[in-house]
Amino acid sequence: MHSELEKKVLTRIRPLNQEREDILKMADELKDAVDKSGIARGMIVGSVARETWVSGDRDLDVFMLFETSFSKEELEEKGLGLAREIATAFDGEIVEKYAEHPYINANINGFDVDLVPCYAVLNASEIKSAVDRTPFHTRYIKNRINGFTDDVLLLKQFSKACGVYGSDQMTEGFAGYLCEIFILYYGGFSKFIEAASEWHPEIIIDLENHQAKDFNDPLVVIDPVDPRRNVAASLSATRMYEFSEFARGYLSNPSDDFFIKKEALKISQKEFSERIKLRGTSFYGIIFDTPGLIPDIIVPQLRKSVVSVTGLLERNGFTVNRADSFMGERKCILLFELLTETLPDIEKRAGPLVWDKKNSDKFISKHLGNTYSGPYISENRYYIEINRKYPSAFKLLQSDELKESGLGKHVKQSVCSNISIMKNTECWNEEFSSFLQDFIEKRSPISDLLLKKMQK
Amino acid sequence: MHSELEKKVLTRIRPLNQEREDILKMADELKDAVDKSGIARGMIVGSVARETWVSGDRDLDVFMLFETSFSKEELEEKGLGLAREIATAFDGEIVEKYAEHPYINANINGFDVDLVPCYAVLNASEIKSAVDRTPFHTRYIKNRINGFTDDVLLLKQFSKACGVYGSDQMTEGFAGYLCEIFILYYGGFSKFIEAASEWHPEIIIDLENHQAKDFNDPLVVIDPVDPRRNVAASLSATRMYEFSEFARGYLSNPSDDFFIKKEALKISQKEFSERIKLRGTSFYGIIFDTPGLIPDIIVPQLRKSVVSVTGLLERNGFTVNRADSFMGERKCILLFELLTETLPDIEKRAGPLVWDKKNSDKFISKHLGNTYSGPYISENRYYIEINRKYPSAFKLLQSDELKESGLGKHVKQSVCSNISIMKNTECWNEEFSSFLQDFIEKRSPISDLLLKKMQK
Repeated sequence: MHSELEKKVLTRIRPLNQEREDILKMADELKDAVDKSGIARGMIVGSVARETWVSGDRDLDVFMLFETSFSKEELEEKGLGLAREIATAFDGEIVEKYAEHPYINANINGFDVDLVPCYAVLNASEIKSAVDRTPFHTRYIKNRINGFTDDVLLLKQFSKACGVYGSDQMTEGFAGYLCEIFILYYGGFSKFIEAASEWHPEIIIDLENHQAKDFNDPLVVIDPVDPRRNVAASLSATRMYEFSEFARGYLSNPSDDFFIKKEALKISQKEFSERIKLRGTSFYGIIFDTPGLIPDIIVPQLRKSVVSVTGLLERNGFTVNRADSFMGERKCILLFELLTETLPDIEKRAGPLVWDKKNSDKFISKHLGNTYSGPYISENRYYIEINRKYPSAFKLLQSDELKESGLGKHVKQSVCSNISIMKNTECWNEEFSSFLQDFIEKRSPISDLLLKKMQK
Repeated sequence: MHSELEKKVLTRIRPLNQEREDILKMADELKDAVDKSGIARGMIVGSVARETWVSGDRDLDVFMLFETSFSKEELEEKGLGLAREIATAFDGEIVEKYAEHPYINANINGFDVDLVPCYAVLNASEIKSAVDRTPFHTRYIKNRINGFTDDVLLLKQFSKACGVYGSDQMTEGFAGYLCEIFILYYGGFSKFIEAASEWHPEIIIDLENHQAKDFNDPLVVIDPVDPRRNVAASLSATRMYEFSEFARGYLSNPSDDFFIKKEALKISQKEFSERIKLRGTSFYGIIFDTPGLIPDIIVPQLRKSVVSVTGLLERNGFTVNRADSFMGERKCILLFELLTETLPDIEKRAGPLVWDKKNSDKFISKHLGNTYSGPYISENRYYIEINRKYPSAFKLLQSDELKESGLGKHVKQSVCSNISIMKNTECWNEEFSSFLQDFIEKRSPISDLLLKKMQK
């Protein structure tokens, strides 16, 4: 069923026996520890529970199921308490994290363990928060994945290699659960790759044939345990079609390259500077301290800010060729490549409709004698040409309009306390060098792969 | 009924007795000459027939009504022959002109006489060409205008003063017949001015209440002699609302200025140059020999060409602030004011949709390694950034793309045989100096009037 190539890949990505034993033993011990507490039941979820983890993965998800008689506050308090207790008993380094509820992340014996309190509900329609759904996912997959484990591993590795693995906000790609559903629905890796190579809009995957809601997302995968949920809601169109392209490439020219994650290239400041000169455009970076919150909160705010600032620039007449954002450990950047960075002193402004007598009179008397041209009538409206407020993009970005343009909440806070507007080469720093490399090269997975082959 | 001001204006614009006698005598003689030919009947039409001409007008429209038994060819041949005969007999300087049919224009005793052959049809629904309708207009107005002559004179003079008189393509304003309908419909000059001061979209004026067709024009005035014709079809929205604004101005502050046609100002080359520098924009003029045809044919082609070339410039990334055209005796100009005249070397181009496999493969292999960035996927489509074909507006306008951009037929012929692309100060010449003055000042009638008062 799998090609020789895929079999070779599997020997590399299938967990070794020792690795398997170690991780399952660790999982058992943690589950037992929860059970022994007497207040909650332990359950291993995620890829370890389903035995669909790729060799080398060290993630271990331990859920602590509380009865629904506990209040939300009790759950949080007792859940966190128990998680801390267990992590401490196992000598873990503890970090408190937050999804819909707080939970504990701990490094235990080299494993990245999440200890997550949730409610033990009887069926998925009674969940009180998203985490309560996870045990149902695990049960659903565990009961069906038998015989498809290798297929899931191949798909996970393939997705990692083309940068589509991960349903976090930064990646906007496939969750592990989504990979498992794909494999179940299409009946294996090869059949799924064939299907994905022909992806187009309005594809609906509904294993249980129980869809109970319409979605506008690029790909709709109805959750087998919840007919009103799209498992692929966090998948962006760009990632979806990048994956499709990669699948096409694999079908026409299968090779090991499709299973090897490419190393992130970094651009040097010198080369960055040269590439900008070659392009003839102007780069503007809005750089500020990274807010102390997880990427899943900050990254969407960065994206929103990029859209807002692009709007601000374009409303003021500056054409944005491309824009993107990056969240580094230390600093974040909103990056804008402009086709024009300065504009003439005049700016045309639309006034009222001519038959709006009151406003027309106001408009004329306000502007008469203070314009480069006008007030004049064109078609049914007044216009004037006045002094442009921001003839320079730099001045515009330095102005208060930036802060008022609709940045995300935490981005705005950080922008207000500490901001640098950088131009061209100044946008570069070590932390951004991979991001800037990607921004400048900007190539789809298959184009990138083909180009590298050509250059060999 | 008329204000003191209007009475004063009327003494100036009402034809003097001597003038009246002269023009009516001339009209009678010409009509008699047609009648005496035996093949056609003479009829005086236009403002002289209706006695609604403004003192100083020297236009005399003599129609030669032929029986419908004549073929179109016979009408043209015999009509032109008779017209030439009469014009020669009256010692006129003869010019052959062309509307829907050819006709003769002659300067006779200082009058600008049109001798126009048409068919004598029994009612307006049987007309064979637009000129056949004119006798019906004259009869309709003559039978009703009694008592409103002064009102028509005031309106004509008022329209002339604000640049809205004339239904030709250059003016896009009111025909004399339209002025007469306005006066009849509203019952006098003052009532019409009040109505016009409140003009807004979807106004329909239908004296005979017999509209038989829908129109999309800014103002709809159903022809009293043809329920399927809009007398205001050639009125542009800009002219309509400029008139409305002027009417408002007159109501709030009546003065003689509203009846005095403003002298066209001319801009000097030096001032033109200074104003461009002040604006900070770039002016490009496409200048070519004026084709040897009447403005009603060439002016619409110039307008079409301005729209086409604006599209060409904007498709290539150059932002047009304003554009206009002018037809001089010797030269025509298409004028474009640009906010940017040069652009970076890169240009983003959209490629196929990702699921269009065949074209996507072609696109990638065609562009791979030959781009600044890409091929890359954004949302559902491929993009590349390649070398911009025209980083300079000047080069674009000099290229063959200009000729292929959709110019009017005769404009294109002239552009192909003789063209200069001029920049900034070079766009100026004596013949364009009024047009350039208007383009730079660009002010609605009332704004212009108010500003001049302020400056006094």
